[in-house]
Amino acid sequence: MSELRRDTLSDRWVIVAENRADKPDDFEQSGIPHRCPFCPGNEVDTPDSVATYFLPGEKPAGNWQVRVVPNKYPAVTPGGVNGNRRPLANVLGGLHFAKEGAGIHEVVIESPQHVLSLSDLSPEQASLVFLSYRDRLAALRQDRALAYGMVFKNVGAAGGASLEHAHSQIIATTFVPTEVRREIAAAQQYYKTEGKCCYCTTLDQELAAGVRFVGQSQSFAAFCPFAGRFPYETWVLPRRHASRFEESSPDQLAELAAFVRDLIGRIESALGPLAYNYIIHTEPFDTPRLDHYHWHIEILPRITRTAGFEWGAGCYINPVPPEEAAAVLRSIPVGKTS
Amino acid sequence: MSELRRDTLSDRWVIVAENRADKPDDFEQSGIPHRCPFCPGNEVDTPDSVATYFLPGEKPAGNWQVRVVPNKYPAVTPGGVNGNRRPLANVLGGLHFAKEGAGIHEVVIESPQHVLSLSDLSPEQASLVFLSYRDRLAALRQDRALAYGMVFKNVGAAGGASLEHAHSQIIATTFVPTEVRREIAAAQQYYKTEGKCCYCTTLDQELAAGVRFVGQSQSFAAFCPFAGRFPYETWVLPRRHASRFEESSPDQLAELAAFVRDLIGRIESALGPLAYNYIIHTEPFDTPRLDHYHWHIEILPRITRTAGFEWGAGCYINPVPPEEAAAVLRSIPVGKTS
Repeated sequence: MSELRRDTLSDRWVIVAENRADKPDDFEQSGIPHRCPFCPGNEVDTPDSVATYFLPGEKPAGNWQVRVVPNKYPAVTPGGVNGNRRPLANVLGGLHFAKEGAGIHEVVIESPQHVLSLSDLSPEQASLVFLSYRDRLAALRQDRALAYGMVFKNVGAAGGASLEHAHSQIIATTFVPTEVRREIAAAQQYYKTEGKCCYCTTLDQELAAGVRFVGQSQSFAAFCPFAGRFPYETWVLPRRHASRFEESSPDQLAELAAFVRDLIGRIESALGPLAYNYIIHTEPFDTPRLDHYHWHIEILPRITRTAGFEWGAGCYINPVPPEEAAAVLRSIPVGKTS
Repeated sequence: MSELRRDTLSDRWVIVAENRADKPDDFEQSGIPHRCPFCPGNEVDTPDSVATYFLPGEKPAGNWQVRVVPNKYPAVTPGGVNGNRRPLANVLGGLHFAKEGAGIHEVVIESPQHVLSLSDLSPEQASLVFLSYRDRLAALRQDRALAYGMVFKNVGAAGGASLEHAHSQIIATTFVPTEVRREIAAAQQYYKTEGKCCYCTTLDQELAAGVRFVGQSQSFAAFCPFAGRFPYETWVLPRRHASRFEESSPDQLAELAAFVRDLIGRIESALGPLAYNYIIHTEPFDTPRLDHYHWHIEILPRITRTAGFEWGAGCYINPVPPEEAAAVLRSIPVGKTS
């Protein structure tokens, strides 16, 4: 259904996915009203689930708490080009490259309630969401055709969401995405010269310095990164070196879910309800456990808008110093939003 | 006033510019109404102009047509750190890098009329705008401290504009921005193996193939790039190899302004009024004329929203095949919007 393209001029990968234009949009002002496909009772509006989660003891009653379903408007598909509306693009003399947009695109419906943000979920509910991330990544890793699985969440129109009911997405691709490759290459370079993981080192330094530190739990820590792109950008890392998110234990996932949920609640306390994204950065499927890479979650509040300079320069303008954002976030008590 | 930062973790440059948070915003719904600082009579609301353009014969009457002024809320400043609210950030053991955000940030006020898009200007007015781009880039190139000058335009809230009165911006930096370096490196690599400019080659191929071709004038051609990030993304190139935009002649600039204005008018005819950016990609100040780089303008309609996948993957999902966009744009007669 979709096509993966790269050309020399832009040195970028693009997924051309025509069917994505058809998806419903809660935020489109001129859109026709539609019923929420993620609410209970409307399961027929989504493909059959690939995983379903229940609260302990509730399974027989059939009240799902989290559902993972194939995306009805996928950016990549298992069949690749089969069923394409057109053949692969005309590829010209070596400058262009096109192949089938093969992969898996899933949606994690995070709650039976029509809520908007991770902070609207109970800690138990959030825990099921993070458990589903782990399970799906672990399952997708078994598929030899796939090279990477990216878990991300879009909240609000400015965050690129088209439906408001709380959900995350997983896109597993047959290639390792550019940003992931760049990040790992930078970490590998540091490891080569310094003999240690740059994430572990940064974590130690940020905990010691304190100015950009936001908070920590038993196994996780959060800080506002020194060169954050967005106001209040916050990163969460396991305190102990680990390159694969999907090897976290259920206890760690419950702790992580509560920690991330609380951080988002703090950002919302500081800024009011807002659009945001978060992205789990974990290692590619086809690598051994890496000493130089450290999985992490990037929380990106979307209160600024990217403009011509950012698109042209690849350099971001952030009007809020990370030190200032971290001080505000530290000042909000943990669990205030629980 | 601002600070340039890079850390190893993100492998990105960020400009931390606190004063940018203070700028007025026409699109902020909760904002206090303010008078437009770009309208005639309100010149006192902007710093003194560094260049002013008049229609032939109008200079004595003082009716300016285009004004170039220093940005009142600059991302970079000539003084660098002087007047900073705080000292440079605490830099930790080699992983972080910070320096003064030195440079020049100017605004091109494109018209005395409170209009919104380049397509609202007369061809003569648009010509003065492009003339001002050239003049400012040529002047900034003389400053040995500056490495690059980026001309860009933001239209509409989704395009990152904060004021609606038609304007462009120029940010000249003491470093060559990441995206420009990547683009030039990819072009250099192609030149090394193929012995020719990849832009010249692409142009020849796109003109011959026709499917992504949009239109041409005597000296310029436009096509929708094979791996465009955004629906209806359109690139404009000089048909004859040239690496420096600012060496265009006044006649060429007039032709280019009319051509770009018409292309934007066609995109607006196809999609309705929309947010967009355009960016002039020209070679760095500190290089000789490059055989492997070809200046160009990227027009980026902003009808889709970047979401978690794009931020995490550096890979874009474009729901409109460039071939389809080009066919629509070709079908709209040239000059329809004049």
